[in-house]
Amino acid sequence: MPLKYGLIGASGRMGKEIESLMNESGHTCVFKYDETGEWKTESPEVVIDFSLPQVFEQTLFYINKFKVPLVIGTTGLNSSQINALKDLGKTVPVVYSSNYSVGIQMMIKCAEMLNENLSGWDIEISETHHRFKIDKPSGTALMIKNAVGKEVNISSLRLGNVPGDHTISFGGLGEVLSITHHATSRRTFSEGVLKSVLFVLDKKNGYYSFKEVLFHK
Amino acid sequence: MPLKYGLIGASGRMGKEIESLMNESGHTCVFKYDETGEWKTESPEVVIDFSLPQVFEQTLFYINKFKVPLVIGTTGLNSSQINALKDLGKTVPVVYSSNYSVGIQMMIKCAEMLNENLSGWDIEISETHHRFKIDKPSGTALMIKNAVGKEVNISSLRLGNVPGDHTISFGGLGEVLSITHHATSRRTFSEGVLKSVLFVLDKKNGYYSFKEVLFHK
Amino acid sequence: MPLKYGLIGASGRMGKEIESLMNESGHTCVFKYDETGEWKTESPEVVIDFSLPQVFEQTLFYINKFKVPLVIGTTGLNSSQINALKDLGKTVPVVYSSNYSVGIQMMIKCAEMLNENLSGWDIEISETHHRFKIDKPSGTALMIKNAVGKEVNISSLRLGNVPGDHTISFGGLGEVLSITHHATSRRTFSEGVLKSVLFVLDKKNGYYSFKEVLFHK
Amino acid sequence: MPLKYGLIGASGRMGKEIESLMNESGHTCVFKYDETGEWKTESPEVVIDFSLPQVFEQTLFYINKFKVPLVIGTTGLNSSQINALKDLGKTVPVVYSSNYSVGIQMMIKCAEMLNENLSGWDIEISETHHRFKIDKPSGTALMIKNAVGKEVNISSLRLGNVPGDHTISFGGLGEVLSITHHATSRRTFSEGVLKSVLFVLDKKNGYYSFKEVLFHK
Repeated sequence: MPLKYGLIGASGRMGKEIESLMNESGHTCVFKYDETGEWKTESPEVVIDFSLPQVFEQTLFYINKFKVPLVIGTTGLNSSQINALKDLGKTVPVVYSSNYSVGIQMMIKCAEMLNENLSGWDIEISETHHRFKIDKPSGTALMIKNAVGKEVNISSLRLGNVPGDHTISFGGLGEVLSITHHATSRRTFSEGVLKSVLFVLDKKNGYYSFKEVLFHK
Repeated sequence: MPLKYGLIGASGRMGKEIESLMNESGHTCVFKYDETGEWKTESPEVVIDFSLPQVFEQTLFYINKFKVPLVIGTTGLNSSQINALKDLGKTVPVVYSSNYSVGIQMMIKCAEMLNENLSGWDIEISETHHRFKIDKPSGTALMIKNAVGKEVNISSLRLGNVPGDHTISFGGLGEVLSITHHATSRRTFSEGVLKSVLFVLDKKNGYYSFKEVLFHK
Repeated sequence: MPLKYGLIGASGRMGKEIESLMNESGHTCVFKYDETGEWKTESPEVVIDFSLPQVFEQTLFYINKFKVPLVIGTTGLNSSQINALKDLGKTVPVVYSSNYSVGIQMMIKCAEMLNENLSGWDIEISETHHRFKIDKPSGTALMIKNAVGKEVNISSLRLGNVPGDHTISFGGLGEVLSITHHATSRRTFSEGVLKSVLFVLDKKNGYYSFKEVLFHK
Repeated sequence: MPLKYGLIGASGRMGKEIESLMNESGHTCVFKYDETGEWKTESPEVVIDFSLPQVFEQTLFYINKFKVPLVIGTTGLNSSQINALKDLGKTVPVVYSSNYSVGIQMMIKCAEMLNENLSGWDIEISETHHRFKIDKPSGTALMIKNAVGKEVNISSLRLGNVPGDHTISFGGLGEVLSITHHATSRRTFSEGVLKSVLFVLDKKNGYYSFKEVLFHK
């Protein structure tokens, strides 16, 4: 069933990728917002936001206006913005994640398991992204850090147009165990976004993670 | 409580490492067998074997003679030798593993989890060891392959004096997720052997894996 | 100055990438050949070939017909096909390389230097590509092997849609030195092709490598 | 010809490794200084120092007393200490390096070459060492940074008992080229120290790098 969707941050790298996959899948963009302003042909049935923290007020404004589900992947939100998102989940269904790839969710599951079993081992997180990435460390690196629930050092590298690499390493005396995720294209993220859009349409109000989209249908 | 132990393959790389850690931990070597022949001052309470498949008959002979527990890490055993080990487990407790590191066991747990959840992804295993390693692929790489239970390609590299690196990668369209284990010294293996020696002393007859030593005490 | 170019292997992954960059740069495709057959509006001024070894006869036929320069990146050619290319270089200028990235040429320069200075060290090459890649090992891995001029083991991994990773490692007793090249998008190859097209237009008959395009203008 | 040597920092990790290799090679330790104080049987013919910056005054004192060549690998020296070393080179021959491995010198040669040829590419350096390492970033990482002569970000990771890994990466749009050095044991450093000891004995006064030891005999 073809959808009419809105896109905040439409002119960004992720915005373009998402629009391309959504259109390829038969859905129609009816509303956009980016630094050139607003563009609208109809009211959307769902809104996708991949923009910047400073746009967040605008996102709240539009969701309150349209009263439709929101799938948001904007990274670098501060804690009061996260709280505002949770509040928004009382009026409409919201999916929020710093990373919409299946592989990253799996990486986090492994990291949690290792963290439980390898007590006394050192932990290090590192991430490499393209030179244009604004936030540092990446939202995904922070997500991984939260998963282990400890003060862990994060190293951030910026190189060329790397889509996104993340590594968590556990070091004991005599061995190092590492999990590395390489995104080979942004496509992997847009497919996670599409999964989340289809998930959120059927849902009641609430604040959902991508983990719930994947594992708790 | 200090132990009197025997060591088959005493002059090999692992043999020396094990002897060093065992002695450091207060235990006494009373029996050795290697390419120079047999050396014995007393009957051992437990035997450790890190040798070669062609020595296996000799190992069986000694265990049947001493009637003591065996901890064995010899790689490259064929299936009839493995069966003979299982039979031996009916008379004495036997621990057998191709790899006595905690990190490798954890790696295998992660690999099993990913294998269950990432259907349709490609899998590749690779391993790097020192130029002197005789078996190819490594026993540990085969252990990892068995854990995923599929026909998986194994790439084997031989470089300098690398103690041992193993990687399993899962590749989907748009992302690659890899788990890598680096042994930074052979010490990690001897500590696993010591754990297994202490485990096996209390045990009834049986054929145990290192996984059982670690998780099912 | 806008060019009229021809493209053999137009419907392949690389074919599409090249067409996209060439058109973006203001050039016009006037001739295509792929598994659907021939398409032509005009005679091309230069022909680009990224196809398969079994198409090679067809490529020779077209170049002899059009009498224009050829830039070819088809991998897996056998030695008699390579010889035929060299012969072709007597009638028209030809650029041939298994890999049109600047980074790979730099990697090869480093590998040559290490190979000269690290005598007695072990060497290993490995490469990872997307699951759809037909030749194995990759033409680029063979190019690296030729650069060191020794019998070197090549490990080939196939995972998801990895654009292409290559590593050469030198292992001494106590250390390993590795050079790794990651292609983060096929764009890097099409830019090398464009460079080669602009280079070859001014050239006399001859058989040129991409190294010559980069360093000996 | 067996040597009588002195060792400052004798009880440290590197100190022990060096003593073991020197003795194995037939040389005799006749003087030691570490946190337990001084130990001496005879005057040394050469002094090796692998200690800490706070010990540096003591090193100067001993060299001025013994009037013998110095091979020093202490990392974390400040610029006035480095200047004092250069001055010392006017009275005795001095070899100073933050890293005595052949592979690291080769890595630096490659990095210099890439730095010259890949203008406009991003550069990142990262290093991983054992949890006990005091200085951060490592002296070797700083050496690599000096070689490229630019403001480059250095990421430092501390994990288990990793002997020492260093990576320099160059990132262009579409590709990343990395050189990685893994020390698989501290032995590689002690062999470089031994080479430097043999080099420095024949030399006139002067301040030498390990690069000169390797390439400009």
